[in-house]
Amino acid sequence: MGQVFLVGAGPGDPELLTVKAHRALQRADVVLYDSLVGPEILKIISPSAQLIDVGKRAGKKLLSQDEINALLISYARQYENVVRLKGGDPLLFGRAAEEIRALREAGLDFGVVPGISAAFGAAAAARVSLTDRLLASNVLFTTFSRAPEAPLLPPVGLSPETSIVVYMPGTDYGEVGRWLIESGLSPETACLILSKVTLPDQSSLFTNISALESLQTLPAPSLLLVGRAFGHSASAHASMDATDRATLENFSRTLISGTRIS
Amino acid sequence: MGQVFLVGAGPGDPELLTVKAHRALQRADVVLYDSLVGPEILKIISPSAQLIDVGKRAGKKLLSQDEINALLISYARQYENVVRLKGGDPLLFGRAAEEIRALREAGLDFGVVPGISAAFGAAAAARVSLTDRLLASNVLFTTFSRAPEAPLLPPVGLSPETSIVVYMPGTDYGEVGRWLIESGLSPETACLILSKVTLPDQSSLFTNISALESLQTLPAPSLLLVGRAFGHSASAHASMDATDRATLENFSRTLISGTRIS
Repeated sequence: MGQVFLVGAGPGDPELLTVKAHRALQRADVVLYDSLVGPEILKIISPSAQLIDVGKRAGKKLLSQDEINALLISYARQYENVVRLKGGDPLLFGRAAEEIRALREAGLDFGVVPGISAAFGAAAAARVSLTDRLLASNVLFTTFSRAPEAPLLPPVGLSPETSIVVYMPGTDYGEVGRWLIESGLSPETACLILSKVTLPDQSSLFTNISALESLQTLPAPSLLLVGRAFGHSASAHASMDATDRATLENFSRTLISGTRIS
Repeated sequence: MGQVFLVGAGPGDPELLTVKAHRALQRADVVLYDSLVGPEILKIISPSAQLIDVGKRAGKKLLSQDEINALLISYARQYENVVRLKGGDPLLFGRAAEEIRALREAGLDFGVVPGISAAFGAAAAARVSLTDRLLASNVLFTTFSRAPEAPLLPPVGLSPETSIVVYMPGTDYGEVGRWLIESGLSPETACLILSKVTLPDQSSLFTNISALESLQTLPAPSLLLVGRAFGHSASAHASMDATDRATLENFSRTLISGTRIS
């Protein structure tokens, strides 16, 4: 009987995998991966390993969660090292709870190797702190993706001291903006939208909740940071002239794509 | 003029550094580090680099935040590669906002390399998912450490769908428990306390809010996970017999300390 490792692939840049995740990929016999995991990361996997795409692409549902669980268990009974590779961290918005229940019920040994969740990749790319001793004392990680069994709950009663990270904000930012306002946030609250964070084609937008309505959607996967902690960064950004801004963006991009630290 | 990198050291296990953080440490001329960063991680740094402990130890305040900011700027003006190394991720509860403001005001170039925050190390070590499609749709990261300028705010009005991660729960878990109950949580809500996560001497306790009062404090740094998503894991844990539990704990320990993936 084999071992299963739930492994976090991080936000996109292969250099943001942990050393342990790197090793787990190199020695895996089988890797079951989601569509969020990019080709540069798949290259790390040994050429002799079996690669199984269990992701859902372009609205086409390839496999149900129950089918993924069954596949995972079946491979764990045939191979010594089975990796379940998930974008970001495996234990945040990754349906790992269901896979863990299935593994426990099957009596299988498993371990977890954490990964950099998209929020941390986004904050690093934008160079903004998620907390601020004066502006934001806590952070809520939430999602705008609804499961039929778990209806979307507005984060009611949040203090203005809370930074909010919205994973999977979808294609209608206006709808997200209305949901945030219903939850008690001011329409002036600063927002930062980041797309494809830490990848060479990442992009970002500084704005506020009221302006979300009129924005074009950035390419998925994207992430929305909301809160007064991000206002300072937006104004710092706006007060730079165009050259400074380009320099900084270029610096940030080259840092994240790894050419600066080499 | 040099570049400054704010680098995340992760939760403790040196194998949980990212590949990029590893490289940043190896090529640094100067590293300013906090007391939460352990000796195994400091060993990665080049022997020719200057190592500066800016942490606070055993109640003895070594340096103020303003002094740290001034040091950082002074080194960045003298050396090419300056690393500011922080436990976990640099942009969560790390006072990075203040260092970023100081760097911007000084006109210095800087970048951020994210790290695995303690919550993800803890969830991986305990093998529990922070979210669960049926039980927990979002996660609040908060702290029980108070700054005089930022009084402790109870996370009022949280839905029972929220998993709560309390960083730095301090030495009086009963006080934390009362704060959670005032915030509207049921005394029966499951809790998981983890100490020194991902280090060889990590330890953990499954309990509930009402029992926090009577618990002995685990060694710092520790972390408290609260929410119904952790109840399932507690009951799975309790239903195992002692041998199973020891096997799993051992498995988890060896996984995290890296002997399983080698």
